[in-house]
Formats: sequence, C-alpha cells, structure tokens
Amino acid sequence: MSRTNRPLTSEPQVIGRSALRVDALTKVTGEERYAADYYPENHLWVGVKRATYPHARLTSIDSSQAKDMVGVATVLTSQDVPGSNRLGIFEKDQPILADGIVRHYGDAIALVTAETKEILEQALAAIVVEYEPLAAVFDPEEALANDAVVLHPERVDGNVLLRGEISCGRGAEALADCAFTAKVSIKLNWQDHAFLETESGVAWLEKDGTIAMIVSTQTPFRDRLELAEALKISPNKFRVMAPHLGGAFGGKDGLTVQGFLALAALHSGGRPVKMWYSREERFLAGTKRHPAVLNYTLGCDREGTLHTLDCSILMDTGAYSALGGEVLGLAMEHAGGPYCIPHTRIKGAVVYTNNPVASAFRGFGVPQVAAGIEQVVDELAKVGGFDPLQFRLKNAVRRGSVTPTGVLLTQTVGIGECLAKVQEHRLWRERQSWQNSSPPFKRRGVGLAACYHAVGFGPVIPDYANAKLELSTDGRIRVYVGVVDMGQGNASTYMQIVGHILFQGYDTMELVLPDTSQTLPSASSSASRTTFTYGNALIGAANILKERILARALLLFSFQLLEQLSVQDLVLLPGRILHQPSGREVPLKMVAGFMDDSERITTYSYTCPVNKQVLSTGGNLRLHGFPHRVFSYGVQLVRLQVDTLTGEVEVCDLLNCIEAGSVLNPQVFEQQIQGGAAQGIGYALFEDFALEDGKIRTNDFSTYILPTAMDIPNMETVVVALAEDDGPYGMKGAGEISIDGILAAISNGLAGIIGTRLTQGTLTGEKILLALRQTGKEGVR
Amino acid sequence: MSRTNRPLTSEPQVIGRSALRVDALTKVTGEERYAADYYPENHLWVGVKRATYPHARLTSIDSSQAKDMVGVATVLTSQDVPGSNRLGIFEKDQPILADGIVRHYGDAIALVTAETKEILEQALAAIVVEYEPLAAVFDPEEALANDAVVLHPERVDGNVLLRGEISCGRGAEALADCAFTAKVSIKLNWQDHAFLETESGVAWLEKDGTIAMIVSTQTPFRDRLELAEALKISPNKFRVMAPHLGGAFGGKDGLTVQGFLALAALHSGGRPVKMWYSREERFLAGTKRHPAVLNYTLGCDREGTLHTLDCSILMDTGAYSALGGEVLGLAMEHAGGPYCIPHTRIKGAVVYTNNPVASAFRGFGVPQVAAGIEQVVDELAKVGGFDPLQFRLKNAVRRGSVTPTGVLLTQTVGIGECLAKVQEHRLWRERQSWQNSSPPFKRRGVGLAACYHAVGFGPVIPDYANAKLELSTDGRIRVYVGVVDMGQGNASTYMQIVGHILFQGYDTMELVLPDTSQTLPSASSSASRTTFTYGNALIGAANILKERILARALLLFSFQLLEQLSVQDLVLLPGRILHQPSGREVPLKMVAGFMDDSERITTYSYTCPVNKQVLSTGGNLRLHGFPHRVFSYGVQLVRLQVDTLTGEVEVCDLLNCIEAGSVLNPQVFEQQIQGGAAQGIGYALFEDFALEDGKIRTNDFSTYILPTAMDIPNMETVVVALAEDDGPYGMKGAGEISIDGILAAISNGLAGIIGTRLTQGTLTGEKILLALRQTGKEGVR
Repeated sequence: MSRTNRPLTSEPQVIGRSALRVDALTKVTGEERYAADYYPENHLWVGVKRATYPHARLTSIDSSQAKDMVGVATVLTSQDVPGSNRLGIFEKDQPILADGIVRHYGDAIALVTAETKEILEQALAAIVVEYEPLAAVFDPEEALANDAVVLHPERVDGNVLLRGEISCGRGAEALADCAFTAKVSIKLNWQDHAFLETESGVAWLEKDGTIAMIVSTQTPFRDRLELAEALKISPNKFRVMAPHLGGAFGGKDGLTVQGFLALAALHSGGRPVKMWYSREERFLAGTKRHPAVLNYTLGCDREGTLHTLDCSILMDTGAYSALGGEVLGLAMEHAGGPYCIPHTRIKGAVVYTNNPVASAFRGFGVPQVAAGIEQVVDELAKVGGFDPLQFRLKNAVRRGSVTPTGVLLTQTVGIGECLAKVQEHRLWRERQSWQNSSPPFKRRGVGLAACYHAVGFGPVIPDYANAKLELSTDGRIRVYVGVVDMGQGNASTYMQIVGHILFQGYDTMELVLPDTSQTLPSASSSASRTTFTYGNALIGAANILKERILARALLLFSFQLLEQLSVQDLVLLPGRILHQPSGREVPLKMVAGFMDDSERITTYSYTCPVNKQVLSTGGNLRLHGFPHRVFSYGVQLVRLQVDTLTGEVEVCDLLNCIEAGSVLNPQVFEQQIQGGAAQGIGYALFEDFALEDGKIRTNDFSTYILPTAMDIPNMETVVVALAEDDGPYGMKGAGEISIDGILAAISNGLAGIIGTRLTQGTLTGEKILLALRQTGKEGVR
Repeated sequence: MSRTNRPLTSEPQVIGRSALRVDALTKVTGEERYAADYYPENHLWVGVKRATYPHARLTSIDSSQAKDMVGVATVLTSQDVPGSNRLGIFEKDQPILADGIVRHYGDAIALVTAETKEILEQALAAIVVEYEPLAAVFDPEEALANDAVVLHPERVDGNVLLRGEISCGRGAEALADCAFTAKVSIKLNWQDHAFLETESGVAWLEKDGTIAMIVSTQTPFRDRLELAEALKISPNKFRVMAPHLGGAFGGKDGLTVQGFLALAALHSGGRPVKMWYSREERFLAGTKRHPAVLNYTLGCDREGTLHTLDCSILMDTGAYSALGGEVLGLAMEHAGGPYCIPHTRIKGAVVYTNNPVASAFRGFGVPQVAAGIEQVVDELAKVGGFDPLQFRLKNAVRRGSVTPTGVLLTQTVGIGECLAKVQEHRLWRERQSWQNSSPPFKRRGVGLAACYHAVGFGPVIPDYANAKLELSTDGRIRVYVGVVDMGQGNASTYMQIVGHILFQGYDTMELVLPDTSQTLPSASSSASRTTFTYGNALIGAANILKERILARALLLFSFQLLEQLSVQDLVLLPGRILHQPSGREVPLKMVAGFMDDSERITTYSYTCPVNKQVLSTGGNLRLHGFPHRVFSYGVQLVRLQVDTLTGEVEVCDLLNCIEAGSVLNPQVFEQQIQGGAAQGIGYALFEDFALEDGKIRTNDFSTYILPTAMDIPNMETVVVALAEDDGPYGMKGAGEISIDGILAAISNGLAGIIGTRLTQGTLTGEKILLALRQTGKEGVR
C-alpha cells in the first residue's frame, strides 16, 4: 500500500509540534482511498443472506432459484467452507456461514456473488431458508438462570462466557466499618460504532493461490491467522492490505467481511470480489459496545477516606464471544476507578444471549464501569457532605499506590494533577454562579468524572511491534507501517518520529501502509497502544538507520577531505548529510548508492514490558489482560443545561483534562480527545439503541441519532504531560481515556439538575422530562 | 551544605508534574538560610572604603586613625594582597583593592574588619584617601574617540574591550535590493539586578590553612580559580559553599564579596568574618545590565520576505570587563532575531568607561538586541503594510534554517509554533475590539515581540557538569548538587529527576547544596543551561545507582527465594525494593549495608555537545560563545493602556508563549516565565537607572523603582513542548527567554498608542506624556 504524499509542508518534523497530517490534503480532496473506495476491474459483488429469527435451527436452504438468475456467479453455504468455519479471536465460536443453528439476526446463512448490486439483492431475496424456531434469551440476567436456553451447549458454564471475581483486603465485609455508604444500580445501553466507512473490502485470488485483500481492518496480521483456521488455508496464503480506515473504534478489531471475501474469492475463478455493508447491514451484523448491568456500593470513613467497594458487573456479549472476555476483564480491572480503596469485591460476568454481538469499542468496558464508580462516588460525597472534587482528590491514586484491584502503580500516575487542574479551572470555580444564572425554564448543572485507562494488552498477550524503514535508492526515507491508521492519525505521528530522528520532512519521506507482504507483523491498532508500541519500534529502527547512513556518509566525506573524520561532525538534513566543520554535503541518494540493499532497510522489534505482579486475586482474568502496567488518566467536566419544558439537554461546555504522558503531536492529540468526548456525548444522550426481542429497531441514522456538530459543546483540553519512561518520547495512549468519563460526568450533572438519578439506558429528553415531572421540576421557570 | 528536608509531600516524584519545591516550607517559614543569614560565632564584620572619584590616581591612603580605633581588627590595602590582585573571568583587569588608580565610584580602596557594624562604619569614614583626579569618560561613543581618556592603557585597542563583525550573504549592500526598508535607533538604559539578598558571605581560615566561605555566588567552583590567581593561593586551599541564593540573575556570576572575605579571613587570626553589602553599596559596586546604543536598518521584498539587515550594537561595560565580551557576543549572535535574513551585517563593540561595571544579567544582551530587531520589524511591517504577526511568521526560522548570523539550526525550533499559538489566542484575535473600547482619557495598544535564546556556553568553553549521588547507609538517596539554586528552583528539579528514576519522594531523599569539598565541579548557574546540563549528568548518575541497587537487591532476593531471578522483576519503591512476582521487599537500608562505600556513591560527568559549524564570519566571537547549537524560543504579547492625562502606562495583560522543550516541573517553569516577564516590565517601564558623571543617582528603592505585585498584569503562559534530543527529558533552558522580548513588546505597544517611537532609556510616564503632547494626544478623551 505505498502511496505518494502530497505534503502541505516540507518542514522537517519535530516531536511536540502540531504536524499537519500526512493525509490531510488527500482526505480533504477525496483522493485518499478507503477500502470501500476500491473497485477492481471486472469485480463481482458479494452479499450474504441473514437470519430472520434470533435463534433457530436451519432445516433447509433452497438457493436453486438464486443460482439460476442471470448475473449470479455463485451461491455458497457452510458446506462450501473448507475449514473449521469458526471465527473468533480467543474463543472460536462464530461461523462464517451458519451451519445448523442461527443465534441472532445478524447470522449469515448463504453467500452470493453477482455482477451487480441489484442482481445481488434479488438473488439474496430468492434464497428460501426454512427454520425451526428455538426459544431465545435476550436478557443477560435471564441468560444466567439454570433453566435458560443455552446458546453454545458445547461450553461448560451455560451461557457464561467469562466469570471473575477480584477481592482485596477484607472484601465486601469491610462495608460494615464505613461511616457513610452509598449505592447505585445502573443499566447501560448498547452503542453502535457508527463509523463513516462501513465494513468493506475487495479480494482476489492471485496466480500462486494467494488470497489478496484490501480491507477495512484494525488487525491485518491477526486476520490472516483467523482466516487460516476457519478456511483451512495456510496463513501465508493470505495477503491483507489495510489502507486508511474511515473509522473503526474497535468495530473492525477482528474479522468482518474478510471471511466472506476470502470464500467468494476462492470461488470466483480469479475475478475480484467486493463487499461493502450498507448502513442497515452494519447495524444488523456489526459488533456493538457491551450493554451492562452494574450494582455499586461504596463506603468511606467519617473523614471521607474511601474504605470499601462492593460491585458487580454483568455484560451481554450477544450471540458470540468476540472480545467479550477481554472487555469484561478490562472493565473489572478499572471497576474501582483511580482511587485507593483497601477493601474491595468486584464480581463480573459476561454472558451469551440472542442479541447482536458486542465486542471492542473505544473504552473497552471502561466507560461502563466509570459510569458506575463515578456515580456512586458522587452519591457518597453527597451522603458524607464532601465536595465531590476534593473527595476524589483526597482518594486519588498516585505513583506507588495500589489500585482497588490490588495493582501496584509503578509508572506515571497523573490523576491527582488532573484533578488539581480542574479544581483551579474557571468551569469548576465558577460553577455556582453559572448554575444560578440559568435562563427561564432552564436548569443548569455541572458534572464531573475521573477515570483511568490501561495502555496495552496486559501480561500474557505480547504487545509487540516490528518497525521497518528504508532509505530508498532515490534517497527518500520510506516508513513501513505495520499498524493501521483508522483515522486517529498515528501514521502521521510515525512520519513525525522518523522525521524527527532523521531530520526529514514529508517531502523526503514516503509512507507505506499496512500490507502483510511488505510491512512487518505488528499487533492491532487498539487498546491505546498503537503509537505507544509501534513508536518504540520505530525509534529503534530510525536510530539504526541513522547510524548506518552517517557511517557510510563519513566514508564518503573522508575520501573527499582526505582525513579521518568524526561522526559527531555530521548532521543529517532533509535529503542530504552535512559535514559541519567543512560545510560539505552529500545527498542521501548518493549515500544510498554506496549501501547494500540489506543495509538500506532497517527493522526493529519491540515488545512492551509488562506488570510482573502476581496477584492473589483475579487469576482467571490474567489471560484477558489483568493486570496492566501503564495507565493514562483523565478528568471530565461538563456544564449542562436542561429545558424543563421539553427535557432537552444541552451540553454547554466540556473540559477534558488528560494525562497521557507527553504529547507528540498536539493537534492530533486534541483531535483524539475531542473525538472521544463527542462519541461519549452520543453514548450518554443521543444514541438510544433499541432492541426488540433481539431485533434492532434503530438501524439507520434517522432512528439511531448521532450528535452532530451543533450538539457538540465548546470543548477544552488541558494537558498534564508526565514523562512515561515506557512510552516513546514519554507518551502514553490517548485514544480511549477521553471517552471513559463522559457518560459518568453527564449522569452526575443531570442528577444534580433533576434531583434524582437516571440509571436506565440512554439519557434521552423523554426520560429526563419524565424524571423532572416526578421530582416536580417539569416546567419550572 | 547538607540540609534536612521538611517535605510538604512524600509523593514519589514524577517528571512533568508540578512538584512542590523542596525549599517551599523552609523559605516560607524563614528557616532556609541564605549566605546573608549566617552569623558565625565571634565573627568580625568586613567593609571596604570606596572611591569618591570616578577616575583618579591614588596619592595616599592614611588609615592610622582607623587602625587605632577600639574594635577595629585590621585595615588592609592593596599592599596586603599576596597575589596579582586582579579579578576577572576572561580578562583579569579588576583589582580587589585599588592599586594606584580608581576607575569608577565602586572601586574599593581599603578593607576594614571590626567587631561591630557601627565601628566598621566609623573606621571606614576615618580612612583618609587623597587623589589626583583624572579626566573621565562616561559616554561609550566618546570612549571610542581617538583622543578619549583610556582606562586600561596596557590594552591594545584603546577603550575597546571587544569589537566584532558578522557578515552574511552580500551584507549591508543588499539593502539596495529591498522594496521596503525601515530604520530604528535606540539607546537603552542600565538595569540593576535588585535581588532580594544583596552580596554577602562569611569566611574563616581553617586549621589546615583552607579558606572556607559560605557565600552568595552562582559560581562556587570557578570562584576558587579566580581567587587563587588574585591572592596567589592554591585553588584547593579554598572551600566555597553556596546555600540557596536570594536571587542573582547574573549579578553573582563571578566574584563579589569573595575577594574581600578571603583577604579578611587571612588576616583575622582564625576568627570568622562576615560581609554583607547594604542596598546602597550593591547599587554602587554591583554589576548591572549593559546599556546599549543600537542602530537597525531592515529591508524586505515586495511580498514581505526579509532580505537585508544592517545593524550596530555599542555596549558600555563600565570600568572593568567582567563578562562584557561574552554579553556582546551573545547580543550579536541574536541581533537578527529568529528570522531568515540572507544578507546581514552586524557590527558590535563593547567599551570601557568610568561608569559602573556591567556584566551578566538574565538575558545576557538579548533583551537589548530584541528591542532593536523587534522594533524595526514592526516598523518595516508598517511601511510594507503587513500584519506584524503574519510578517514574523512568514520569516520565522524553522528546523534546518540558517539564522541571520549564518548559524544552521540543527535542533528543535519552536518559533513558528509559538507565533501560530499567539495568532489563535484571544488576546491577539480580539486586539482591535479591545483597543476600540478604551475608557475615557485612556488609549490602548497591543505589542508583540518574538525572540530566541541560546542555551549554554557555545563551542569553546566546556558546558560541563559532574553529578554525584549516594545511597546513604540509612537507606536514603543523597543528591549532591554542583550548581547553585539561585531561586529558580533547579535544586527541586534535580530531586525530581532523581526521584523519578529511583522512584523516591522528598522524604527518602536528601539534598546537598554546592560545596566544593562535597559536590563535584560543575559550571555556573547561568546561560539557561543549569538544569539542561546538570540534569543530563544526574540522569547518568541515577541510572548507574539504580542499576547497582537493583543488582545488589537481586542477590539478596536470590538468597531468600533460592532461585535465579531476573532484574526485570524488581521495582524500586520509596525506601525499598520489591520483587514483583513474589511480593517480597527489602529496604534500601539493607541493600546499602551490602554495598561497599564506593558502590554507594555514583558520579557522572556530562559535557554538552556543541555546534561544530565553522563560520566564515564572527570568528573573534567564537571564544565568547558564537555559535550556539540549542535555542529556546518565545513570543511575548502585551496589552497596554496609557493615561493621556498623566502618561501612566498600565500593562493589562501579558502573554508569554514559550518553546523551551519539554517542561519537567510546570509550576517551577511558570514561575521562571512570570519572573522573567516581571523583570522585563521593570526594565521597560520602571527601573529608570540614573547616572550623573558616573555617579548613581538611584541607589535605593525609593529612587530606583521596581514594579510591585500591583504593577504586574494578568499573565498567561502558553507552552509549546517540542522534544529536544540534547536536553534531559527533552527540555531546554527557560530562565531567560521569558525576559528577552518584554521591552520590545512594550515598546511596540507604546508606539502604536503614542503614534511615535520612544527610543531613549526607560519608558517612564514622564517621557510618554511628553511624547503624547508632541503627537497631539495628551489629554485626548
């Protein structure tokens, strides 16, 4: 996936500066191509027939009519899948094409390839599927019952995908010691990733039997392994290319269209195939954020020192596991928030239901538990009569503290500094006068949340990256990127890192996007670890390349100047090397000409250090990532205004105070923070995902409402830049911390305004109006 | 100078966090002792008799009456000085006690030691000095005349201390190409350092003949060498201790009281001696900021691209060289500002006069030349019709640019980013509406300046530091500091660096302040290089100590656990080491017990890399520091309001946008930036230093007016944090960049308000009123 830059600037890159994105111009002009924008010549369209029951046994599939249609190339069913027909990252439980049972409405039953989209639609409609409906379960609590229908009978623990308990100190029994306690029960909704570019890709069978695909994926290298098992084809027979993605947010972490594309390519006689979900299909078959049922009890002593937490988390993974176990693990690890709480019991379970599949989604379980802990913290502050910010500050973890799950914090910890910054901020200081100056028929409130977010995969799954750089024969620096840029701008930051070290600007560099045949294996673009890990690998590769370039240039200068020279006297400049004392220069191209091909390419392998702590608790969560070593921190503050006549909420201001280490590219950093906050506002107030017996009732953007630019408040980002030794140039991941506390902060703000706590689902105006009515505040001037 | 901390926090230190100063509590409570606060038992007071002529031959000194007074211990003259009696850092031209000639009113003629201050005063008054007055010169331009009286006839170039010329491109002749040109001539005043603690110290002769002193100095190690030559005593016979300083700002860079103290100690039969300048004596004998005469002509093309600079700088070093040559060198290096100007001629000279001695002062010549270039840039923007900010941005240097003195910028360059931030800032964006809303009888204006400041000593004088750390036998980390903390907070930052690496808080660390017998030789606290250089040395020492501690701890754990362990499993914690997998800990104290004394102490020597460029210009400035390698950058913006009835100026807002690399301790950083800005306001508007034939007419704080808290505006600091590879954790020096542009920005703001440019001396209300009268704006409503 080599691409020519059209740089807006030739300025040599420097870490810490707002470097324009390398893809800024090509995206604005529309030249940049997502996977969805590829239309190979003579391609067939791929589509699948989806289930019409949430749980049923397939009794027959009649595709004869479809097969006979003019313009239909192939119709395939599970019988045509050569391998295990089972996808899944840890737990292989999801068929590419249903083989016997359908477990939710998104299940694919048959695959069609056709000349046009119209023929494809007609052919899919012409396939007749007969079912024997099965009892279905849609409520995760019901799914736990002994007599519940079981989705995956071959598993040992009924519908439970993963169950865990973390207990520290004297656990829940220490609640008895507390002077003050508070309790909150919450039920959180699904959320759709709602990315710009729905699932899409093209594929073709190459002459040597390789299945090549250009696909919108966060995980090109891992995709090959998942495909290999399901299709019983060697992983090196797949070539996966990932151009820039039109958003992903976790929704492309794992296979989406890849299995269908590979299967179609195998049966298309060498013709390319293309698949691209419609928005409705995305809603139907794409993964979601896990809904959750939370029960929190928190207690502190008379002085406001937190003492005991007892909480439970129940999540619904839908019909298949996807990353459900990992999401639960991360949720449980963060369940107690960034506080010192010596006695804790954290119980968690994630269960199968006949609902849509839930998996990774920016925040990865943390926005859910942050809504739990941060609401109960606010309630406890009220009960005890403590200032909610001061209360958080008093109990905040610091470097060397132990978290509520017993994890020793050995790396940078910025929550105290974030809280202190918010405490000084006018949005907090002036909250009373702002609230008191509500216009008629409006009520105002300020909500607060503190949160933290682990960086990386935890102690078991290797958090690795392999960087590759090349000095091309024409003297340019080629940056091979092994991890996907799904829109967060990491590819630009990689150019920035390499440019900083090698003193180059965009115009003397080239970017090669992920391509399993050109770039080196690296783990996914996810877990707030993308730049954290790949950046470290790149620094290694760039330093080696720099050393090689300077050493070879030194030789050239020595011949010119006929004396022994020192490498300290050389300076890399854009496109050339300068011998500073003599003022002589040689172009990079000439140096490249004096290097062997193997010398012009440098690679560097990096694996993140992990937390070596062996905890007496949460052992079965270890595989799923518990415990982590590095965390980012944040405090979110919102100013809300509620219309007492309509229940409408306006988010007037939003402050995100973030400690995610040093900031490499301030502009890209702020974009991440703002994007996360906007998505959090959608999660809290707008995106009222509705299911009815497993069927999605909000499957387009007229029913599933996203916040628009008009709904997004003034946002301010305040940075606390601690120097994290693990991170490249002291950075930590910033992709998720910005969303984690938004729902919690908005909930806390609304509780103040309404006088009661809304704890069920998306906080729509309808619910707020009803609550205002109940508290006697409806229509109050 | 070991001291016990009274920490306000025991939190483990982290780089990037606002760590409370280690000396915060002791300073607030008054426990912390400056050199001035030391009163050794049974000490004598030291004082000196000063000249009563600005230039004269000494014909006789009659001290018989003084010697006979009860309570007088000794009276000494130059005859009692054993060595060369010549002080000076590069040029040894200043006597400790005048021997034949006095060259300004501050010259000391005789030294007295006495039992009390009162007796001392009486004895000094009783010394009768007879003079043969000599013609004197007070104007630097007159001092250059062929027939001028010469202060140091033994020198070759009349009164010229140093003369230089830098020429790039086609030099001044390229002015002819310019579409637009502008010209500014400026005469800048002296400035007094006006530190809280005037020059002071105590000294005593130890039994072994060592002269020990506790003294308020920026340069304990260099002081020994200066003393050794002047007194003909081996440098290792001096022990210099430097506690926290009550300010210095360059005014204690080089000897002040040290020569007198040493001399007195030698003649006091083992009794300690104490000297402490009164405020008046400080004004009389202390060094000052160099006054300067500047002539600037600047030209650009039709599109506003800078083309040619022709400028001259004349500085007055007063009676002695001190650091006059170095100040001129730095001024010339920065004369063209942070812009790309291909054709330049920069002429400079610093001359002797019979005025007070000028030397180092925060900014070191740069505030002077910034006032020149930034005013002519504003004038040229006006002539060409360019927006002054956009004009600067268009011409700003970037990484890889060449400065107006031909210096290639290989390191981080942040001026473009700073200008862009100011451009977006409301104080800039809303300048027009703010100006338009002046209250009655007020006129408002906004002034801007961009500047840069070299870090360190340049290519010849080694910019070195030697760090030393100790794991004490009681398990604490002792940080030996070789460079002085003159109030800027660097000692706290050193604790922060060591604490960050070794995971300790203040309560498990100790600070040892500079003491030539305990800490290791390090260069001065000056040149925006204090933490830059010492920080790098400390990182080295801390990493070695960490490695040693972990290695020895590993052994102890291995014996306990009876297995081979990995050092990666160990974590340093406050006061102890944890073996993470087993959860076992050993205290640092125990580890110390298993180490040899030599292992418990680690040292690390660091010398900064330098610019290896060999320039065809400015060769005679090389010794004086030209060219530098690393620069900090800043943009200063002021909002001014002038009273048209009184001429009074109010600085309403001040924005300092600074790029000085990463910020290690945000609070200390901001204090530096605010302090520099306040001092710059004093320089520009308040501190109207007045001389009359070499005699200071403003020698106390009722005549020399400092701005108070009431005169200091709302200040905002905006940080651009580029990652400087040379600096510890990516930082650069921030001690001077904050003052460099203040006078320039205020001058530019006033020019807009008044309609003409004030170019002579301190910009007092009196001058402003007169100028308003001339432009017809006096009393305008």
